[in-house]
Amino acid sequence: MIEQMQRTDLAVELQEDLSDKEILAGVHVSTQVNEDNDIKETKILIDSPEGAESFGKPMGTYITIESEELRLGDEEYHEPMSQVLYKHLVNMIGGATKILVAGLGNRAVTPDALGPYVVDNLYITRHLIREELLDNVYDISAIAPGVMAQTGVETQELLRAVVHETKPDLLIVIDALAAMNSDRLNKTIQLSDSGIAPGSGVGNHRKAITEESMGVKVIAIGVPTVISVPAIIEDAMDMMLEAFGRNGMREAIEEFTDEERYELASEMVKPYLARMYVTPKNIDEAMKRISYTISEAINHLHHSYI
Amino acid sequence: MIEQMQRTDLAVELQEDLSDKEILAGVHVSTQVNEDNDIKETKILIDSPEGAESFGKPMGTYITIESEELRLGDEEYHEPMSQVLYKHLVNMIGGATKILVAGLGNRAVTPDALGPYVVDNLYITRHLIREELLDNVYDISAIAPGVMAQTGVETQELLRAVVHETKPDLLIVIDALAAMNSDRLNKTIQLSDSGIAPGSGVGNHRKAITEESMGVKVIAIGVPTVISVPAIIEDAMDMMLEAFGRNGMREAIEEFTDEERYELASEMVKPYLARMYVTPKNIDEAMKRISYTISEAINHLHHSYI
Amino acid sequence: MIEQMQRTDLAVELQEDLSDKEILAGVHVSTQVNEDNDIKETKILIDSPEGAESFGKPMGTYITIESEELRLGDEEYHEPMSQVLYKHLVNMIGGATKILVAGLGNRAVTPDALGPYVVDNLYITRHLIREELLDNVYDISAIAPGVMAQTGVETQELLRAVVHETKPDLLIVIDALAAMNSDRLNKTIQLSDSGIAPGSGVGNHRKAITEESMGVKVIAIGVPTVISVPAIIEDAMDMMLEAFGRNGMREAIEEFTDEERYELASEMVKPYLARMYVTPKNIDEAMKRISYTISEAINHLHHSYI
Amino acid sequence: MIEQMQRTDLAVELQEDLSDKEILAGVHVSTQVNEDNDIKETKILIDSPEGAESFGKPMGTYITIESEELRLGDEEYHEPMSQVLYKHLVNMIGGATKILVAGLGNRAVTPDALGPYVVDNLYITRHLIREELLDNVYDISAIAPGVMAQTGVETQELLRAVVHETKPDLLIVIDALAAMNSDRLNKTIQLSDSGIAPGSGVGNHRKAITEESMGVKVIAIGVPTVISVPAIIEDAMDMMLEAFGRNGMREAIEEFTDEERYELASEMVKPYLARMYVTPKNIDEAMKRISYTISEAINHLHHSYI
Repeated sequence: MIEQMQRTDLAVELQEDLSDKEILAGVHVSTQVNEDNDIKETKILIDSPEGAESFGKPMGTYITIESEELRLGDEEYHEPMSQVLYKHLVNMIGGATKILVAGLGNRAVTPDALGPYVVDNLYITRHLIREELLDNVYDISAIAPGVMAQTGVETQELLRAVVHETKPDLLIVIDALAAMNSDRLNKTIQLSDSGIAPGSGVGNHRKAITEESMGVKVIAIGVPTVISVPAIIEDAMDMMLEAFGRNGMREAIEEFTDEERYELASEMVKPYLARMYVTPKNIDEAMKRISYTISEAINHLHHSYI
Repeated sequence: MIEQMQRTDLAVELQEDLSDKEILAGVHVSTQVNEDNDIKETKILIDSPEGAESFGKPMGTYITIESEELRLGDEEYHEPMSQVLYKHLVNMIGGATKILVAGLGNRAVTPDALGPYVVDNLYITRHLIREELLDNVYDISAIAPGVMAQTGVETQELLRAVVHETKPDLLIVIDALAAMNSDRLNKTIQLSDSGIAPGSGVGNHRKAITEESMGVKVIAIGVPTVISVPAIIEDAMDMMLEAFGRNGMREAIEEFTDEERYELASEMVKPYLARMYVTPKNIDEAMKRISYTISEAINHLHHSYI
Repeated sequence: MIEQMQRTDLAVELQEDLSDKEILAGVHVSTQVNEDNDIKETKILIDSPEGAESFGKPMGTYITIESEELRLGDEEYHEPMSQVLYKHLVNMIGGATKILVAGLGNRAVTPDALGPYVVDNLYITRHLIREELLDNVYDISAIAPGVMAQTGVETQELLRAVVHETKPDLLIVIDALAAMNSDRLNKTIQLSDSGIAPGSGVGNHRKAITEESMGVKVIAIGVPTVISVPAIIEDAMDMMLEAFGRNGMREAIEEFTDEERYELASEMVKPYLARMYVTPKNIDEAMKRISYTISEAINHLHHSYI
Repeated sequence: MIEQMQRTDLAVELQEDLSDKEILAGVHVSTQVNEDNDIKETKILIDSPEGAESFGKPMGTYITIESEELRLGDEEYHEPMSQVLYKHLVNMIGGATKILVAGLGNRAVTPDALGPYVVDNLYITRHLIREELLDNVYDISAIAPGVMAQTGVETQELLRAVVHETKPDLLIVIDALAAMNSDRLNKTIQLSDSGIAPGSGVGNHRKAITEESMGVKVIAIGVPTVISVPAIIEDAMDMMLEAFGRNGMREAIEEFTDEERYELASEMVKPYLARMYVTPKNIDEAMKRISYTISEAINHLHHSYI
């Protein structure tokens, strides 16, 4: 759900903000690039409260899968991405077999429709298992709860109610994210076991969807589909300073931290612009392709059941 | 949700099956036609268990609003229908002010999309009231829970969970219905305070959505959008007998009750045909118009709040 | 476009009506079943005006691909069907390289949305070739012209205009069809090189889409997604006669030709029922799967270009 | 169609760029505010080639209707806007009675779906008139031609073909526009009789849709639903200069013309950002409301026919 936009929802972008030598206690980063298919996987493990505090994300594992090709739209490219996502997903799921998938977001706003689109293509089995028409498969149920403007109910409330009633072992939430770097739009998938825990931002009415609030383990799968307006402004700011600044101002700004620069950009933005987002013109094709990549990874679980 | 199809979901059609002189104890019928706008209102009150048993519907009030014009699609015709529905709705709602509206059915199958389409056009206020942006209006929330093939979860389970979490005073369920008489398709609205209580039909996995199962009062608004295949066959049976029967067979069949005739027709239908429905070719236009008529009636509640 | 429904749009069903020994001059039938994947292919070649007259279809080649599995919905089953369709398609296309695909039908009515859904998933290249961003691929353009109730314009007029303006070598039209036998719904693909030539039925306002009317070769790809109400009645008639008829009537009817029986059934059906269709409740899943099977077959053309 | 974005598509924004005293020969502006409903109407008449050159828009009449309320979403507010639009539309239509409405844009990308949504709600009569089921009404046909990425065909080509085949007196094109000022998004309707004539921008492959290219009079109805990224940057530039600039740079920039400032902002924007747009998060609600306002205005024509 694209509601209150963070500077970035991607752990990998926070990590890039760190200077090369900077090492945060409790934050462990490893990267691998598969030469064959040009897929880059970054794993960020935050294993202490200090790490969470300094890094700016809750404790947990954040896996980012990136592929230039996913964005370019090669017809057959979704398969390797889907396989890599599946591999990490199986690993995170562990022994859970009763899985509720929640496709967050607004089906009627293209870049926010990722979650509902994924749910549309899932192979649902819970009712078939209960009617004894199937066995030896994962027990998959799914819901696309809509957004608060459509339902009047917070997503967290709805999911808590459904989890309480249907008692899955695990909740997978699929959501559209905001990135800072437009290079990552629609080509990056982030998988994490820390749920969705929106920052403490003023005006944030969407509450956390985490193991703590839900009572079951929560895995989040997200794809950046939009950039916030302040991130765009921040991006332009550098170029403006490059272009004009010769006289102290530029140096002053360069001493700012990334967070301070984002706040500066946010202040430059008129209030209504904070309720806007930036998205590519061909977002419809991107959403179709990426949602299919994710739903295929989840559907592939049925092949692995023992 | 068009799942297990009854002979008819309309109380008014059951009532028509009765012969003129037949009077059922505990079943009270009154009819009124508004000459101005050609809208016919039929009220059937079932006020004893015996009435429910003999009539074949749970105790409660069933109001049917019919209009030739609604079906014909006059551009401005939705207004009188909407007004009449609103009038009965306000009456049934009584003092309830916190209302959850559930749009049942499958958005991806046109004649089953009535509920989701109504929800799409509601004016939702629950979140605005909670954020203190609005007051002195009905507290409206809404959900389109999808169907079991999409979610793996029974509609009843999902609604019970949401009712338990959000604690409305009243649940309004909107659903597509089956009629026997194709004259009624897409031109009749049925309103009842007995919830949705599918018959005891074998294989019916959709459990009742009633005050008893939900814990709050339930009002059902339904529109017949399909006919079941057996009802079509039954219809044709009369004409076949008319055409061919000169020899005892016809008389034998004419002694059957309506229920027996429907069962006979059902047996004639191959099993897979029972999972099919009959619907008009212009069902898309009908659904748009009727869902708008209903959503306008519900939205009009906000004008009546004291 | 499901407008004026024929008894059947499938050549293979007309062929089945023939008694075993019946041989029509100018009609050549061959059948093959692939044991590996259980796909049955029937090729009907009508090569003389007499054959067309007696068979009831225009001269040309009609290939029917049937698979039990396609209907059952095995997740991976679309691939063999798609391959078989592709094989026949390449063959029929011959040397044509500039192809306009027209997805007929009404996107807003689920069983009529086959054509628009196929178009949604095609890999379109015409504009990329013209901008010199691509070469050595088929030049594919596509249109979903909607139905007359939405546009006010006959499909034939719209297509003729677009063909005249964009000058393709070949027009492929995708359309939802009516079958008589519900066993064939959503599991059969018919490919023909005779275009779409609706019968001479009274009231048929959709004119032919053929090489003659379009000025370019026309290939039609169709899938039966509905049954007409009279076909259902005709189906039930046998069972009724079986059940009741012991006295001459049954024998009388058995002497009727299939065409006469259909007309009898049509007369039994009240007029408004002729504007209705019969379709399965899970038509949404079927449409998604089948449209994907067809779009993949067309997209696969790009791999075969020399 | 949101393809190549201009600085602004709104004549009223170009007019605001002019300083107060600036008077352009051949450009006539009049404004009126209706106190009752707070609707502001601005009429810009460009009646000489010099006016067109200096103003930056083709010769013709541009009427802008603005309403704060349309954006705020008051449930009943569409009516006065619809009435005002209808009034100007009747006037521009003159004696034309055979009207083709083209809903441009991509139905699958929310802020670009204005045109298709309007077409969905039109009362189409052309086929009914031809079948002699209706007379004494405007002859309305409509098409939503899709975008080039979906069809491979330029919108201009498709429309020219349909106009040539169906021979209307008048073409009305409905399109989503780009504005500079986010205050205008989704609350402004621009009506003009000069068609759609995209600027001479490099890379603009959408050709003009004008009386000259179509052979019939063209009326364009547009609503700004997006802002281009450079316009956002330009907006922020002022605030940055305000914040930092004390030293000549600010003064230098302030001497730039608006056009120069936009180009400066465009250069600051990385190339891929030029293919992005900025749109509000609740764009789905806005599109539903505004498309209804426009379709009602067009449908109202049927009431005025003599």
